[in-house]
Amino acid sequence: MSKHNTINPQLISAIESLSDIGNSRNAYKNSGGNLPFPSRDMLVTILNLTREVLFPGYFGIPYVDNNTLKFHIGVKVERLHSYLSEQVLAGLSFSETAVVPHAEIRDKACEIASSFICQLPDIRRKLMTDVEAAYNGDPAAKGYGEIILCYPTIKAVSNYRIANALLKLGVPLIPRMITELAHSETGIDIHPGATIGEYFAIDHGTGVVIGETTIIGNHVKLYQGVTLGAKNFPLDENGNPIKDLPRHPIVEDNVVIYCNATVLGRITIGEGAIIGGNVWVTTDIAKGVKVYR
Amino acid sequence: MSKHNTINPQLISAIESLSDIGNSRNAYKNSGGNLPFPSRDMLVTILNLTREVLFPGYFGIPYVDNNTLKFHIGVKVERLHSYLSEQVLAGLSFSETAVVPHAEIRDKACEIASSFICQLPDIRRKLMTDVEAAYNGDPAAKGYGEIILCYPTIKAVSNYRIANALLKLGVPLIPRMITELAHSETGIDIHPGATIGEYFAIDHGTGVVIGETTIIGNHVKLYQGVTLGAKNFPLDENGNPIKDLPRHPIVEDNVVIYCNATVLGRITIGEGAIIGGNVWVTTDIAKGVKVYR
Amino acid sequence: MSKHNTINPQLISAIESLSDIGNSRNAYKNSGGNLPFPSRDMLVTILNLTREVLFPGYFGIPYVDNNTLKFHIGVKVERLHSYLSEQVLAGLSFSETAVVPHAEIRDKACEIASSFICQLPDIRRKLMTDVEAAYNGDPAAKGYGEIILCYPTIKAVSNYRIANALLKLGVPLIPRMITELAHSETGIDIHPGATIGEYFAIDHGTGVVIGETTIIGNHVKLYQGVTLGAKNFPLDENGNPIKDLPRHPIVEDNVVIYCNATVLGRITIGEGAIIGGNVWVTTDIAKGVKVYR
Amino acid sequence: MSKHNTINPQLISAIESLSDIGNSRNAYKNSGGNLPFPSRDMLVTILNLTREVLFPGYFGIPYVDNNTLKFHIGVKVERLHSYLSEQVLAGLSFSETAVVPHAEIRDKACEIASSFICQLPDIRRKLMTDVEAAYNGDPAAKGYGEIILCYPTIKAVSNYRIANALLKLGVPLIPRMITELAHSETGIDIHPGATIGEYFAIDHGTGVVIGETTIIGNHVKLYQGVTLGAKNFPLDENGNPIKDLPRHPIVEDNVVIYCNATVLGRITIGEGAIIGGNVWVTTDIAKGVKVYR
Amino acid sequence: MSKHNTINPQLISAIESLSDIGNSRNAYKNSGGNLPFPSRDMLVTILNLTREVLFPGYFGIPYVDNNTLKFHIGVKVERLHSYLSEQVLAGLSFSETAVVPHAEIRDKACEIASSFICQLPDIRRKLMTDVEAAYNGDPAAKGYGEIILCYPTIKAVSNYRIANALLKLGVPLIPRMITELAHSETGIDIHPGATIGEYFAIDHGTGVVIGETTIIGNHVKLYQGVTLGAKNFPLDENGNPIKDLPRHPIVEDNVVIYCNATVLGRITIGEGAIIGGNVWVTTDIAKGVKVYR
Amino acid sequence: MSKHNTINPQLISAIESLSDIGNSRNAYKNSGGNLPFPSRDMLVTILNLTREVLFPGYFGIPYVDNNTLKFHIGVKVERLHSYLSEQVLAGLSFSETAVVPHAEIRDKACEIASSFICQLPDIRRKLMTDVEAAYNGDPAAKGYGEIILCYPTIKAVSNYRIANALLKLGVPLIPRMITELAHSETGIDIHPGATIGEYFAIDHGTGVVIGETTIIGNHVKLYQGVTLGAKNFPLDENGNPIKDLPRHPIVEDNVVIYCNATVLGRITIGEGAIIGGNVWVTTDIAKGVKVYR
Repeated sequence: MSKHNTINPQLISAIESLSDIGNSRNAYKNSGGNLPFPSRDMLVTILNLTREVLFPGYFGIPYVDNNTLKFHIGVKVERLHSYLSEQVLAGLSFSETAVVPHAEIRDKACEIASSFICQLPDIRRKLMTDVEAAYNGDPAAKGYGEIILCYPTIKAVSNYRIANALLKLGVPLIPRMITELAHSETGIDIHPGATIGEYFAIDHGTGVVIGETTIIGNHVKLYQGVTLGAKNFPLDENGNPIKDLPRHPIVEDNVVIYCNATVLGRITIGEGAIIGGNVWVTTDIAKGVKVYR
Repeated sequence: MSKHNTINPQLISAIESLSDIGNSRNAYKNSGGNLPFPSRDMLVTILNLTREVLFPGYFGIPYVDNNTLKFHIGVKVERLHSYLSEQVLAGLSFSETAVVPHAEIRDKACEIASSFICQLPDIRRKLMTDVEAAYNGDPAAKGYGEIILCYPTIKAVSNYRIANALLKLGVPLIPRMITELAHSETGIDIHPGATIGEYFAIDHGTGVVIGETTIIGNHVKLYQGVTLGAKNFPLDENGNPIKDLPRHPIVEDNVVIYCNATVLGRITIGEGAIIGGNVWVTTDIAKGVKVYR
Repeated sequence: MSKHNTINPQLISAIESLSDIGNSRNAYKNSGGNLPFPSRDMLVTILNLTREVLFPGYFGIPYVDNNTLKFHIGVKVERLHSYLSEQVLAGLSFSETAVVPHAEIRDKACEIASSFICQLPDIRRKLMTDVEAAYNGDPAAKGYGEIILCYPTIKAVSNYRIANALLKLGVPLIPRMITELAHSETGIDIHPGATIGEYFAIDHGTGVVIGETTIIGNHVKLYQGVTLGAKNFPLDENGNPIKDLPRHPIVEDNVVIYCNATVLGRITIGEGAIIGGNVWVTTDIAKGVKVYR
Repeated sequence: MSKHNTINPQLISAIESLSDIGNSRNAYKNSGGNLPFPSRDMLVTILNLTREVLFPGYFGIPYVDNNTLKFHIGVKVERLHSYLSEQVLAGLSFSETAVVPHAEIRDKACEIASSFICQLPDIRRKLMTDVEAAYNGDPAAKGYGEIILCYPTIKAVSNYRIANALLKLGVPLIPRMITELAHSETGIDIHPGATIGEYFAIDHGTGVVIGETTIIGNHVKLYQGVTLGAKNFPLDENGNPIKDLPRHPIVEDNVVIYCNATVLGRITIGEGAIIGGNVWVTTDIAKGVKVYR
Repeated sequence: MSKHNTINPQLISAIESLSDIGNSRNAYKNSGGNLPFPSRDMLVTILNLTREVLFPGYFGIPYVDNNTLKFHIGVKVERLHSYLSEQVLAGLSFSETAVVPHAEIRDKACEIASSFICQLPDIRRKLMTDVEAAYNGDPAAKGYGEIILCYPTIKAVSNYRIANALLKLGVPLIPRMITELAHSETGIDIHPGATIGEYFAIDHGTGVVIGETTIIGNHVKLYQGVTLGAKNFPLDENGNPIKDLPRHPIVEDNVVIYCNATVLGRITIGEGAIIGGNVWVTTDIAKGVKVYR
Repeated sequence: MSKHNTINPQLISAIESLSDIGNSRNAYKNSGGNLPFPSRDMLVTILNLTREVLFPGYFGIPYVDNNTLKFHIGVKVERLHSYLSEQVLAGLSFSETAVVPHAEIRDKACEIASSFICQLPDIRRKLMTDVEAAYNGDPAAKGYGEIILCYPTIKAVSNYRIANALLKLGVPLIPRMITELAHSETGIDIHPGATIGEYFAIDHGTGVVIGETTIIGNHVKLYQGVTLGAKNFPLDENGNPIKDLPRHPIVEDNVVIYCNATVLGRITIGEGAIIGGNVWVTTDIAKGVKVYR
């Protein structure tokens, strides 16, 4: 009988080649000894815990009882703090080039996780304005519960608001991983660095892109396929893109942008303006103006 | 040694705030005691079971044997009935405001689950017309099996046909959760309330939106990024959108709509019409007319 | 007490109907006895193993140590070979119509899996050019690690490069399942039959479609929503699409195509050309030309 | 290729025979519709939860913090109540022959679960006397923690004390399943109907049997292989054993029984008596007497 | 920071030593290529499946319904056949020294699995006599259901009857693994080669040993700690024990053997004899004789 | 509808009582912050890993190939080192009363884990002598493989040899947990502090007890139910047992002790002596003497 699963010499040689670090140095990451590692699965767990704490009775905690709700929230917050501290530490260590004492980074990670959790009541408050906006803007919506349970806008904007809070607390890498998780699930790609006001809603959402330096006011509504992007970006003397320049639109309060519209560059869409579907915008739009194709 | 994972006073106070129901009432759902809860995971299980029953040999049941197929179908149908009854009950309870005796709702849920399963042979027949349409419309398709196993159109349209049947049986919430599961996986967003004929195919599919009151005939084909949406929607005296008005297109038999076209409002795209890519349509299109950009 | 979960006569009759093979023959797949079955879950495992071998320290292997890396790579390659052999065999058996001796197909499957693994060092090399291109083209990118860990372009292009290698080795079905997995996760739909050069990057990516006969050079960049599709396809005498005709664009080196542009048909986009956002292209574009809307 | 896994006619006929209820009626259990079912796995979960609540910091809850302990206990008690109610209901339904309204049994099950939980503080207190007895009686014991974490006597006596409390609350079947779980793990077989005082310890334990009507005082110690059994049991007129007669020993305070001793029948081992190893006792032993072989 | 988890040179050298096959040849098993492997976990699954088929409504199948029982039995029998064929093949391959064509052994394994399943109705019939015997012999038993669900005698005797059937069908290794699983769980060690009649019951059971060539009649009852063992065993000229000689007791119908009795050698315990507790027997006991200590 | 699962006031008050640390202080363990915790599940994983490394091809690694064995051993050793370091740290921390710097204990734990692994080749060598002894002593044994795969003596003695090595390296608690795991599975209770020579075999094994200060030579064989125990133990002035005194038997080379024999106290069983079944021994036995009942 032939032995199908045994390793032949070609495979041994492939193993040699794949294990040769000098061969392709950038393909490897050496995070060093026993540091925690950025983990997509742990971030999913963290996001689920956060959702369970933000919307009790909708996720994780099957029903809300005055006597016992605090027990559930308490246990989940403790677990969230523990898991998040590890992932924040992973993010901090991932990017660290200078040698920083381990205990010091770990303390910092715990403090960041704690500060983040203290912001959760405010994040919940903002998300409830987003839920209200989604409900008021969709005749097909049957109630707040439906929106909280299954509207992609709430999934994407929750992840954004969580990621943005972590980014502001100085956490590298993790925020981007969090918004990419929502991007993967909803097709809505919001950079954690964007600034987004309250009562924000995205209808359907697939294909929406909101760039790193975008600023969005209150009561703004986007439809599927809308891009708030950069028109172009200057390169430095080495031909590399210059980081951190404002290059995405400012969208003021009460703006509506219909499906597949593309808005590019550091321009301002004035308060109450309406951008029609499939429209291509690369210049400022004044307050209240309606742009149709 | 410092105790990193212990809860500090700020966290205790965050727990207090997050547990204060009066604080943010709409963020909580009290489904009351021991009712089943709408569960995304259970719906995934239900959809997998349904797929296994609809396409034996492709999913779940590794091969089809005349002697034993009925055993497998029987066991899966029994399990499907049990799980679906629970989720239908969850949907019915979720939306119920009036006090209805529990046993009565439970009986109703079981009957609905049973009625749904009795429609599965017809749903299978319709889906096979969709498979045939996808095969005939794609030169890259190598056979029916490939389409059943991995084409997103079949994933999205299966979920739609299942959700639409449940919606017609009077189930709240659950149908929308089912189509959102397909939306998340395929980027195709079909509202369960839409009406879609046979031999329906969507190529690639990412970004397709089909609104709640859309009516689609037989032998219709859509490409990626097509929107069949509402142009606008009237508000009632309180400024809230009026529910359930027909506001999405009627697409007659044999229509083809190419990629990224946007068709808005209660208009009719006549039989055999062709809408070109990136086209923007807000008025009726007569039979057989071709609209290009 | 009523027995809610018992099976009523209507359900028994639904079971009969669903089990009647004559009823709807194409809905069944009889893969025959004890052949392995194409399994989405196993392909996910295989893709994760491949990623762990390609990017050690980023996925699966928590850190890279000169002493032990080869142990990890060795164990993972052995497992990859075993799992992949099974799925290749599943693919070969799925499509086989003629009667081929089982042992012969099994040997072929093992050889294909082995040949594929021997290409992994080269696939890694190419993917590192893609990582470099993504980094150089995105001011928001903070480092190679962020791109490897979470950029959808790398997810989609990895799956494509893996699927393309398997397709060239003669594996049916499996390559398409692999690119559909990336399509589902990223919204980027690359047919495994496409030809794509090095230093390839897709920004954001949702809605991108790259057809079966597309040819893409080196240093090409696409943005979200770009379609490289067929304009139309000829039918044979029976009205079925003719397979395998070149019908998608040729995109030469250094081309950039901005968001939501649609490029259709066997046309050539010349070296260094730039296609603006939302543009609709169905004719050749000469070298260096910029096409804006 | 032969189809190894297909079902041959002999197997079909075995299936027919195994499905013929008339064939072997007692081998089947028809618990009727949607009642919960006595589940060994659920009982294991329930016992683990109980252990976590009784010994926080040793099981399940990794550390004890004044601020958060109540959150953990609260969540676990709520879960315990829910799971235990289901299993008590399963036990009540399993044995029920008369037709009792379902809602009534369910209410009874919930009350029993609640009463049981209210006894946990007292059960903990008693178990701590058992821990103390084990520590004082074993020169090899290094501390209370070691005894709580891994001594079989604590495992067996915990299960007994839990099962005994449930039995006294009128729960059928479940108590016996609980002590059998400990029997399987420790080789110590204590019938839930036995009466056992405080400061009770069993050393090593394998092979110990304590019968249904045994009465044991305080500060009693047994070694491995000790049987406290029935000498014989009277039959009724039909030749069946008469249930519930006292037929096992009474063991008074401060008795020690060494390894493999056998004590049979409704006899009394008087206070402070010592029964030597391998001794066979079927008559009363007076206070303080030492019986050696 | 020190890297705690990295591998030091001593560990590398331990790896070298542990990987050196020449070093300790018998510690390795080379089962060759892609043969299935004897798996304790798979045997547990197989035993659970068998129990579910033997006692429907008690294990696995939550309730018995005339309409659907056959579906459940059919699916479980098919799965049982598939899993058991693999493990029988593993057993056959494990012991094979001569080179036998693979396909031939595989066919043999499938036939054995099929023959075994055809014996299940008879195994069920015998086990129901054992259940009856346990019920009649224990005043503490509340009903057949309690005995089927949790009495160790049924667990141990089920495994024995299954293992014995497989042994008679010529399967190596697997039968012994099956009885060891029961030994581990119940403390009852029955060799699969023993011959045991109907209406067989073991009370409590911990410590019972029944040797390979033991023959037990009908209506025999044993208590905990009973050994039916060999007195001694002759060695061959090389000092190795001679295999397969009858060396354990013959126990005729209606014998009772009380706890911790030891019965050794190829002796006969005559019909209706009673062996008292802790008794040591190495010579024939005539019919009806009572042996007490 | 009544809310069965809600928490009533009695339960709230039980929660209060169970959370009151002052109430029953010894029932709580505060291991402090983020220390690892002794985990039965992790120890099971560690024991499985160790078995896979000791007996490749029998456990975990499905077949042994000269080319790849080292990869498997390497990966498993690395994982074993990581998991074991954590559990050793848990053991060290568990018992620590003085305040020792955390990093120092962690380093010590890693060194101990490393030293332990370096002893594995010698542990394997000794275990192979035990396998040989079991094979030579059992006419029912069909080969070494059967003994390695399923004989309880190997399970129990493996755990003992592992636990004894860890105990000698100064690890508290963990060794006892490891031997209790074997006790639970086999009914064989060997204290990790015992000293046991080579070629050691226990037949059947249920009920065997080997005390902390027992010393066993080479080529010793025990049968089921044998106790090597303490006769009594002196108390200190407070009435507590004095720890660490030699109080169990010394069993010299080539001794056989038959089933259910009890050997108590610091006595010596001389070389080649035979102790018959059910015998009770509390005095020295000279070389070569046979003691029968």
